[in-house]
Amino acid sequence: MLHVGINGFGTIGKRVADAVRVQPDMTVAGVAKRSPNFEATIADDRGYDLYAADGREPFDEADLGTAGTVHDLIETSDVVVDTTPSGVGAANASLYAEHDTPAIFQGGEDADVADVSFNARANYEKAVGADTARVVSCNTTGLSRLLAPLRESYGVEKSRVTLVRRGADPGQTGRGPINDTLPDPVEIPSHHGPDVQTIFPDLDIDTMGMKVPTTQMHTHSVNVTLESEPATEEVTALLADESRLFLIPETLGIDGAGKLKEYTRDAGRPRGDVWENCIWAESITVEGRDLYLFQAIHQEADVVPENIDAVRALSERTASAEKSIRRTDEALGVGRGLVEHDGSPQRVDSHADD
Amino acid sequence: MLHVGINGFGTIGKRVADAVRVQPDMTVAGVAKRSPNFEATIADDRGYDLYAADGREPFDEADLGTAGTVHDLIETSDVVVDTTPSGVGAANASLYAEHDTPAIFQGGEDADVADVSFNARANYEKAVGADTARVVSCNTTGLSRLLAPLRESYGVEKSRVTLVRRGADPGQTGRGPINDTLPDPVEIPSHHGPDVQTIFPDLDIDTMGMKVPTTQMHTHSVNVTLESEPATEEVTALLADESRLFLIPETLGIDGAGKLKEYTRDAGRPRGDVWENCIWAESITVEGRDLYLFQAIHQEADVVPENIDAVRALSERTASAEKSIRRTDEALGVGRGLVEHDGSPQRVDSHADD
Repeated sequence: MLHVGINGFGTIGKRVADAVRVQPDMTVAGVAKRSPNFEATIADDRGYDLYAADGREPFDEADLGTAGTVHDLIETSDVVVDTTPSGVGAANASLYAEHDTPAIFQGGEDADVADVSFNARANYEKAVGADTARVVSCNTTGLSRLLAPLRESYGVEKSRVTLVRRGADPGQTGRGPINDTLPDPVEIPSHHGPDVQTIFPDLDIDTMGMKVPTTQMHTHSVNVTLESEPATEEVTALLADESRLFLIPETLGIDGAGKLKEYTRDAGRPRGDVWENCIWAESITVEGRDLYLFQAIHQEADVVPENIDAVRALSERTASAEKSIRRTDEALGVGRGLVEHDGSPQRVDSHADD
Repeated sequence: MLHVGINGFGTIGKRVADAVRVQPDMTVAGVAKRSPNFEATIADDRGYDLYAADGREPFDEADLGTAGTVHDLIETSDVVVDTTPSGVGAANASLYAEHDTPAIFQGGEDADVADVSFNARANYEKAVGADTARVVSCNTTGLSRLLAPLRESYGVEKSRVTLVRRGADPGQTGRGPINDTLPDPVEIPSHHGPDVQTIFPDLDIDTMGMKVPTTQMHTHSVNVTLESEPATEEVTALLADESRLFLIPETLGIDGAGKLKEYTRDAGRPRGDVWENCIWAESITVEGRDLYLFQAIHQEADVVPENIDAVRALSERTASAEKSIRRTDEALGVGRGLVEHDGSPQRVDSHADD
């Protein structure tokens, strides 16, 4: 049983902890937090051991018991997942090295924070046995999952993506815009293209970023110029076969991120999380060698299964991406409750052989 | 003096009427409306003769005098600009033909409503002496203005554009979305690409549309693969030289449509209107033969000067696009009050020779 410590218990950390908890080969060693806010009470309620990232006093005052400091958590963990805010992870790196504890960072950190930038579908094997890995950001994860099968099956000559980004997460009440559309960044390319290149160093990709007044999901307008000329149906079948890509059937009448998340809440997902890239099936269009599609990315959730796979890669539980992905998806429920593109209910197969 | 009738006095009609009024060679023959709402009182206040599109009684009851019916307006006009809602224009076409009055339709109508789909910068000469013209939609106008100089100077191999569309106009209180991003239409291409091809029939262009919760402006993420390889600075200079393209200088600190419209309100524009395509100067980027940029399009305003030019083309006041554009811009104030890309105040030259 792998003991996984989570340093940071915000948007990503609380989800990673819950995802670790349901894995058959992992347990939550504990979670470290700075302040005893509402999320600390959730951690307490879940039965996760709380560790103080700064000092134990604020937790004592809030009547929340702590099991120790963040140093104690790192010492007791086989792997630490750092889900602290951007920049803090880099500052924590020396801490994990001191304790000789393998560590996973998030995509908000620069690529050089870790040995490997990681996406389970694209380059799992590179992280096997590494000391540190960086799970790339939600948008980069979404693009890597999509580009990996396209590269393998058809080759990618060039990719051009406009990322229409949610302005803030639901809890980020201080961020805008309200009633505006901002090029963000206004310079081209946005950082997303170079970030995808940390996964596919030889990929030709240009990205443009915008910010809009929604808290729901990111939406990508994707163009991929392929090296061959598959039929639209062929590409649709290829993508439908990927476990972390959900092709939204036209019949569901889901026109945007709002209905999409209502659907996953109805389906019983924890927090309504959408771990999969959600691709509008009828948007998939091949014109010559140009593939176009729209996909929605749940910024709070899509990196969660990737963090679980990264834990398995670093700890060498399996060298097979396929096995790790299958195990993660089955335990977490990726694909569960969603209708298949062809109308049949999607199901995650049980595999006893891995 | 050209007598220009305006049928419909909503978002576009009221702006076209005010634009006609300030032209030295035109006068407002009158405006036709269905109902005596707030816009009818504005027409009355401006001194425009009101004509009843359906019946005169509602106006009588509202104490707004009418000069006649829409038939009377058409009869008294040299040219009619139809700015009625999409679909109504097509229904009105036979009316204008009956009275043998040249008519201009808006981009919400199908292309076959008129002899010519019109953009002043791209194909003015095609409408000279025609009976009818259709001023293409705000988005198509914005793309045509941008593509015309690029085609002339560098050639365009292919264009790929994502149009992030405002969900509604400020007055359209019944339209969404609130807090969502919708592929709209979800099918690819959106109608915008084929619509641009009504202006440039041989252009290779794929467009993707989205709808977001803002009422300010449309924002385009533009990629144009050129046939040659100009430097970024060269393209910037080319676009800065176009009278209906405004390159937003980085120094102004304008990060989105909100500040952009605050700037044009500060500059004293009527209704704060932005008649120009607004291109973020620092977004203009050439990578190989791929040009990228962001531009914002004021959906309520950019077609207004185009309607004025269409009036001149149909009535054969001048066969020169350049002369008409210059005259329209000078009278209306296109470019006025805005800082040039190089920091100098922009100004519209006075030309007595045309």
